[in-house]
Amino acid sequence: MHNRPQTPDFSGYAEQVFNRCDALALHSQSYEGMDRRYLTPEHSMANLQVAQWMTAAGMETWVDQAGNQWGRYKSATPDAKSFVMGSHIDTVPNGGIYDGILGIVLPISLIQYLSDNKVKLPYHLEIVAFGDEEGTRFGTTLLGSRAITGLWQQQWAGLVDAQGISIEEALSNFGCEFSQIQDASRLKDKLLGFLETHIEQGPVLEAEDLPVGTVSGIAGAKRFKLNIKGHAGHAGTVPMTMRADALVAAAEMIQVVEEVATELGVVATVGKIANYPNAVNVIPGDVEFTLDIRSEIDSRRDTVLEILQQVLGQVAEKRKVTLDWKMTHSANAVACDPKLQHLVSNSISAAGYRQFTLPSGAGHDAMAIADICPVGMLFVRCEKGISHHPAESVMVDDIEAALKVLNNFVRFYQNQYQEENQVSLSSPDLCA
Amino acid sequence: MHNRPQTPDFSGYAEQVFNRCDALALHSQSYEGMDRRYLTPEHSMANLQVAQWMTAAGMETWVDQAGNQWGRYKSATPDAKSFVMGSHIDTVPNGGIYDGILGIVLPISLIQYLSDNKVKLPYHLEIVAFGDEEGTRFGTTLLGSRAITGLWQQQWAGLVDAQGISIEEALSNFGCEFSQIQDASRLKDKLLGFLETHIEQGPVLEAEDLPVGTVSGIAGAKRFKLNIKGHAGHAGTVPMTMRADALVAAAEMIQVVEEVATELGVVATVGKIANYPNAVNVIPGDVEFTLDIRSEIDSRRDTVLEILQQVLGQVAEKRKVTLDWKMTHSANAVACDPKLQHLVSNSISAAGYRQFTLPSGAGHDAMAIADICPVGMLFVRCEKGISHHPAESVMVDDIEAALKVLNNFVRFYQNQYQEENQVSLSSPDLCA
Repeated sequence: MHNRPQTPDFSGYAEQVFNRCDALALHSQSYEGMDRRYLTPEHSMANLQVAQWMTAAGMETWVDQAGNQWGRYKSATPDAKSFVMGSHIDTVPNGGIYDGILGIVLPISLIQYLSDNKVKLPYHLEIVAFGDEEGTRFGTTLLGSRAITGLWQQQWAGLVDAQGISIEEALSNFGCEFSQIQDASRLKDKLLGFLETHIEQGPVLEAEDLPVGTVSGIAGAKRFKLNIKGHAGHAGTVPMTMRADALVAAAEMIQVVEEVATELGVVATVGKIANYPNAVNVIPGDVEFTLDIRSEIDSRRDTVLEILQQVLGQVAEKRKVTLDWKMTHSANAVACDPKLQHLVSNSISAAGYRQFTLPSGAGHDAMAIADICPVGMLFVRCEKGISHHPAESVMVDDIEAALKVLNNFVRFYQNQYQEENQVSLSSPDLCA
Repeated sequence: MHNRPQTPDFSGYAEQVFNRCDALALHSQSYEGMDRRYLTPEHSMANLQVAQWMTAAGMETWVDQAGNQWGRYKSATPDAKSFVMGSHIDTVPNGGIYDGILGIVLPISLIQYLSDNKVKLPYHLEIVAFGDEEGTRFGTTLLGSRAITGLWQQQWAGLVDAQGISIEEALSNFGCEFSQIQDASRLKDKLLGFLETHIEQGPVLEAEDLPVGTVSGIAGAKRFKLNIKGHAGHAGTVPMTMRADALVAAAEMIQVVEEVATELGVVATVGKIANYPNAVNVIPGDVEFTLDIRSEIDSRRDTVLEILQQVLGQVAEKRKVTLDWKMTHSANAVACDPKLQHLVSNSISAAGYRQFTLPSGAGHDAMAIADICPVGMLFVRCEKGISHHPAESVMVDDIEAALKVLNNFVRFYQNQYQEENQVSLSSPDLCA
């Protein structure tokens, strides 16, 4: 009855994943660091490479009208529904070789393993390589995953890249059709679920000494531009007590942001600052800075924002400067499906690792996919939490751990699926 | 015996000064805001205009080998020494029309008044229009005044402007000779003193509701670049407690600078800041900011610096960032001559205004001239303390006040000069 070993050896498959991440990195618009943007020739080449690996793993492949690369490991049951794994194949400029990519390459090697061991599933197991998640080419993120949720907007046709090429034009050059974009939607298919494997992009798993973790949800972010207007003046001639220094006011506010966020358990970052006139001997008269604030719990984030609006307003008043807030981005938190979280955590412990659940502070394709089916995420440790940088690094042992977890997940999901659908499979079962 | 009225009417002369500041503003490299740099055609035209006004006031004129414009209101005593008034004729880009200029145009109109009233002095009264104080063309300040102190350095020949033109070349185009620069030195002449009239460039006189004030000294400034290195990271994925955010560290330091400076009575300014990578969703990993710190009392400034070095070091340690200091500028304070201060203050009260003494936080030509003779300064109120900006503004009534003060000064200085030199003048005396 058992055609897979009790403790399957994934070390060879882990090496395969590791090497394939390197191989895919050859398709870069830049020689220094990764740069692979949506609908570029490099994207096309990367899709082709991924499709070859999918085919070798026994999958059928296709590219949808949004340029997403798909592969399907077909179920023995012809009318089975599909469970999807995957992530994005684009990178930021000067990026790394694992962000997104790992979540495509890793499940392909899992399916290679299933195929090598002639494992059949009662559901189709699909893998998708989303063409755009980072949004670096057209300034709008999650284009790939939003296409499969059927939520592309007509006006996106006119979004242009830095060279003035529109999405419509770029799609056409890629062999796709903007007018046919609804064909990419998987809404009608009633997908069973979506599991995204992704590097953590943070230092928490490393600090916990764990290779992998279950994601509880994806934080909702709001972003603001704050503008402070004080009075510029000569650095030597205006007494300290007669100043309305916009940069000192900003400095006090930046500290308040840190204090309040830390105390109330959200993450808040002032990442960008512009100071005017920005001269060594002139008191700053005008400062603009950004605020990025995130929480898994939207209401908590918004409570912190209310407090910050009040306290920063008091700082401005005290310092005789004006303060102006402008919201530039708002997205609500997306919770991972509790059942999928539970399966991922059990898959982790069954692979011999401590269960550990953490939120994702970064946005992911799973956020978009949550609109059409339950989503789950598995985080893989990355060195020092570094991402969006050539120094992005993942250990092959952690890849092996993630493969074991995904393999367990596929088995556990099958059990759940069979219980829920009360079907039994004639082909070899998957119980270890 | 009295050929001047008891309360001379300077209103017409004040209008002349006011209008001449406007007239001189026509010689600008830019149509928007003033921009008149050293040894440019505009500098040459401005010199020519000033020389015409000097000539009209009965002065003999010349340009020295550094391009400074001079005029001399000759004493009846042929071998008399010279007392000098003046300031600089160059401006910063996007500057105002009074900074420097007022200190040239105003004493010319005083001499016009003396000449109109046939007043003779026992000393030569000279006016100088320094070609460079701001240092915007060649990156080195006080070039004009340093030439007359004989302190030009041989290596300055090679200093180049933004177009790659060297000082040597620019001097030659102006009709001067770098090799003859020592001819510009007035060291051998044993000048009696130098009085610079200048807009305050600060808000203190305005706050005191006074048109003019006596300057006690020019603050010594030190400047630094401070570099903080923390750890960049993803704004969503790194928990607040695991961050080494360079910008929050800088923010705390900027506040400490303000606190310590205010408490200990110096002025300190963080005017310039650069943040890396400066992206809305990235925790800042590297921040560089400038510190400009000034005091009339060098030892006080240096005490504050010692404290800051200690406290900012503690902030860096607490926040697990590195902090690196680099000094970029150091100048000691220059005290105004006590006798000249006394004369200026008495001239103010004799003109009917409250005596008020304040330090200059900004650098001035008088700093350089202090190397070769006693120096004094008279500050004139300017609107909101704004300078180095097209909004620079001076009231004609304040110009009139300054003219009265300078006229008193010339009389009082004559008395002092005659007492010290035990000479009496055959020509009409100047006692009011």
